[in-house]
Amino acid sequence: MELLEQRILRDGQVRPGNILKVDSFLNHRLDIDLLDALGAEFYRRFRDAGVTKILTIEASGIAIACMAARHFGVPVVFAKKTRSKNIDGAVYISTVRSYTYGRDYDITLATRFLEKDDRVLILDDFLANGKAVQGLLDICAQAGAQVAGIGICIEKGFQPGGAALRAAGYRLESLAIVDSMSDDGLTFRAE
Amino acid sequence: MELLEQRILRDGQVRPGNILKVDSFLNHRLDIDLLDALGAEFYRRFRDAGVTKILTIEASGIAIACMAARHFGVPVVFAKKTRSKNIDGAVYISTVRSYTYGRDYDITLATRFLEKDDRVLILDDFLANGKAVQGLLDICAQAGAQVAGIGICIEKGFQPGGAALRAAGYRLESLAIVDSMSDDGLTFRAE
Repeated sequence: MELLEQRILRDGQVRPGNILKVDSFLNHRLDIDLLDALGAEFYRRFRDAGVTKILTIEASGIAIACMAARHFGVPVVFAKKTRSKNIDGAVYISTVRSYTYGRDYDITLATRFLEKDDRVLILDDFLANGKAVQGLLDICAQAGAQVAGIGICIEKGFQPGGAALRAAGYRLESLAIVDSMSDDGLTFRAE
Repeated sequence: MELLEQRILRDGQVRPGNILKVDSFLNHRLDIDLLDALGAEFYRRFRDAGVTKILTIEASGIAIACMAARHFGVPVVFAKKTRSKNIDGAVYISTVRSYTYGRDYDITLATRFLEKDDRVLILDDFLANGKAVQGLLDICAQAGAQVAGIGICIEKGFQPGGAALRAAGYRLESLAIVDSMSDDGLTFRAE
């Protein structure tokens, strides 16, 4: 998606350790007009998928999930990373390895918010090793819900998450796929 | 706000320890149509306040902040609760006491995303003891930014956060103020 690629080129920052910082528009400061355009693009790509619910993971997935949900006219549910006193009752649990934070963590979702009648669109801001998405897929499997598709704002194409999901047959749409990153700049995969 | 009060009466659940669960529409499963209406209401109440930025705190504040930001046409910035490898550079830090999680935690915001020219609208889903809002006010003070107002979806009027903020002179607008909660139901403060 040209709009997102241009924004990454303009405002993204490449850091050691394959880190692409896009916190000035996507996941710390949020450019709402951009997010609304990304949400509209997800709708264009998945409007035929019969989506009944958008599933994401806190915290940085919530913004794009909400902005997309307006276009789909469906609710959002988000998996939580910390189990607070306020979650009671039955929950789905899956364990996710975070490379960003360097540890494993559990994600939880109240069982009553995801059912076997649901057709789920999983949305997130980043896809690299794919561990967060795998955790969300695990929760969908526990619920018996169908996965209508997976939408990602920025995929790191040189890391294995996207290839594994496509090989497993999932309908994966990434709005920008970064194929290489270095101090000299970055390149995108042609659509 | 009648729409929100009716929804709380219909779908909210009162639990021991003054807990009001609204996770079926406000902070776990997100009713996007409702959030959009709440966002429009915040805009109606603060449209004259010269807001340049909406400030919230992860995770559950992000959804209402994004939906409101569309109406204001301004960006959102959210304070983070965990300092990841991906935040580098200068940050504002404030320490917040969470009664929900039973511990203190630091919130951080990259300094370059909040400046002294900003007029900030602080938004959050809940206000009880007001510790999260106090942390966000502390960050605004560190930035030298002006606080245009504070918007809350649900205030627990029987806890001290709201009264303290009003006494301090802040323009605080809560869309629903719960004055009492018990097994027999709850009552709202008249507007």
